[in-house]
Amino acid sequence: MSKGNLDVVGIGNAIVDVLSKTEDAFLQDNGISKGTMTLIEAGQAEELYAKMGPAMEVSGGSAANTIAALASLGSKAGYIGKVAHDQLGAVFRHDIRAAGVTFETAPLVKGVPTARCMILITPDAQRTMSTYLGACVYLSAEDLDEEMISGAQVTYLEGYLFDRDNAKRAFYKAAQMAHKAHKKVALTLSDPFCVDRHRDAFLDLVKDHVDILFANEAEIMSLYKAKDFEAAVAQARPHCELSVITRSEKGSVVISTDGITEIKAEPVKEVVDTTGAGDLYAAGFLHGYTRQKPLKVCGRMASVAAAEIIAQVGARPQRSLEQLLKDKNAA
Amino acid sequence: MSKGNLDVVGIGNAIVDVLSKTEDAFLQDNGISKGTMTLIEAGQAEELYAKMGPAMEVSGGSAANTIAALASLGSKAGYIGKVAHDQLGAVFRHDIRAAGVTFETAPLVKGVPTARCMILITPDAQRTMSTYLGACVYLSAEDLDEEMISGAQVTYLEGYLFDRDNAKRAFYKAAQMAHKAHKKVALTLSDPFCVDRHRDAFLDLVKDHVDILFANEAEIMSLYKAKDFEAAVAQARPHCELSVITRSEKGSVVISTDGITEIKAEPVKEVVDTTGAGDLYAAGFLHGYTRQKPLKVCGRMASVAAAEIIAQVGARPQRSLEQLLKDKNAA
Repeated sequence: MSKGNLDVVGIGNAIVDVLSKTEDAFLQDNGISKGTMTLIEAGQAEELYAKMGPAMEVSGGSAANTIAALASLGSKAGYIGKVAHDQLGAVFRHDIRAAGVTFETAPLVKGVPTARCMILITPDAQRTMSTYLGACVYLSAEDLDEEMISGAQVTYLEGYLFDRDNAKRAFYKAAQMAHKAHKKVALTLSDPFCVDRHRDAFLDLVKDHVDILFANEAEIMSLYKAKDFEAAVAQARPHCELSVITRSEKGSVVISTDGITEIKAEPVKEVVDTTGAGDLYAAGFLHGYTRQKPLKVCGRMASVAAAEIIAQVGARPQRSLEQLLKDKNAA
Repeated sequence: MSKGNLDVVGIGNAIVDVLSKTEDAFLQDNGISKGTMTLIEAGQAEELYAKMGPAMEVSGGSAANTIAALASLGSKAGYIGKVAHDQLGAVFRHDIRAAGVTFETAPLVKGVPTARCMILITPDAQRTMSTYLGACVYLSAEDLDEEMISGAQVTYLEGYLFDRDNAKRAFYKAAQMAHKAHKKVALTLSDPFCVDRHRDAFLDLVKDHVDILFANEAEIMSLYKAKDFEAAVAQARPHCELSVITRSEKGSVVISTDGITEIKAEPVKEVVDTTGAGDLYAAGFLHGYTRQKPLKVCGRMASVAAAEIIAQVGARPQRSLEQLLKDKNAA
């Protein structure tokens, strides 16, 4: 596979997830805000890990999950992100390559370990994340592969990159490379607290640098400090070619200059773990988008992929999403 | 918790499982014999890992799974096994301690990494294992904690220990420590090929050093080179205080000097991954045994624990088995 003609290249924090089931009381006792992503330092990560119950390790990272899912859907996908030269880094590299993704970012040889995200899953299937960024902090503009980015139809960036300056600079540089090659730039807002931390920068991005915006209801309302969903939609509409907003069981809406397309949520037998719902939604949508499918079809692909991932533990698909789309008549 | 008055202490290969779903063709193409455990070297492990699909990492190791399950059942449990001083070793140590198990074996500081077992799960839910023993090879008699072993009601040993000389010597030493303190020694035969590799040594063990023998049908028939199950049972009967034989969906039998107790298999909605079925069966049985329950009750506890683990991916329970026994009226 040539790395110069991908459908989508993703850039994000390369993370291994440490997933553990817990009770709500554990979150309260440890002062962790349910449903969000909190950044923690190495020492805090050790402390939290020592208190947590038995866990399982699965490769994660928001954009990496999207990209792995895109490969499973049959898209040509690449990824740029920083792991360390250690066992968890090897796990991350194996998993994303084994999914069929082109991944060539050089690992960090010395210093800090590969990033870990402690994901606590409560009985309501909600996930709460505490992330130690480790090697991710060292992702920089030098890690950008211009051949990959300028050749891809879409460069997909996660908002989480804004949490560190090196990565933020890489973000702008990547957007510039993509646009110079007349390709599209997509952004996911990642998390309402992430939006809070970087609201002005995100507003600037959305107005001037992003073609396709992914967000959930809480994130888009936080971005525009809107009092209700309709107000946020009205503000978002002129900013991007497409704004794609997920609303959990209420489905999703795609806002374009032509109007608003509403998409129903795909039914799920039993929601087990919501980790990766937004990531997989973006994957399904971009899979359709890069195939020039109507927005309604892109949205259906997105909903099917999201429904699949919340019916399992972890954010990487355990079966072929390409086959799933066929089985669900969503291809 | 005092480490000197445990219900059960387990000694085994301390392994992190790398679980991945695959097709039967992958096993055939790579010359791997379905349903068995094959030992592989570091280079082969790298090669197989590179060919495998995306995976998840969950702590494993046969006796370690049994011991973690015993803790989840509410038993006081300890474990002795060798990991390296690396990230996977930290994962193993975290998971077994977080399960409530006393685990104090010093890690191997230099040399080889923590053991990994590549577990390929085929669509029929059967698991096929390729194990790189890594640091396990360095488990030796010096790692035995006499306070722990002489204080525990049962010392539980896995047959896999016989694959390496250091561990084999530790095995005999541990059995000696337990018997000197008038405690029981339990052994699981682990795998029919493992029995093949060490038949004479295992026959000697079963006759003279083991009080409670765990095996499945294939293992017990291999041990006695028996032409049918009944012949194997007849030969096993005089050798141990108890021989506990599992027969998958046909249930299990407990052979004692008093007679034979038949136990039904617990129904399972959907078998997802058979990894750990035997390990969890042994846990349930020993939980009842160390509480002086009738054999029928020990067998029911065993079947409930085994049924739970094959309905999920990985061999470590994801919810409280103590609660499960209550819910199933098996406590």
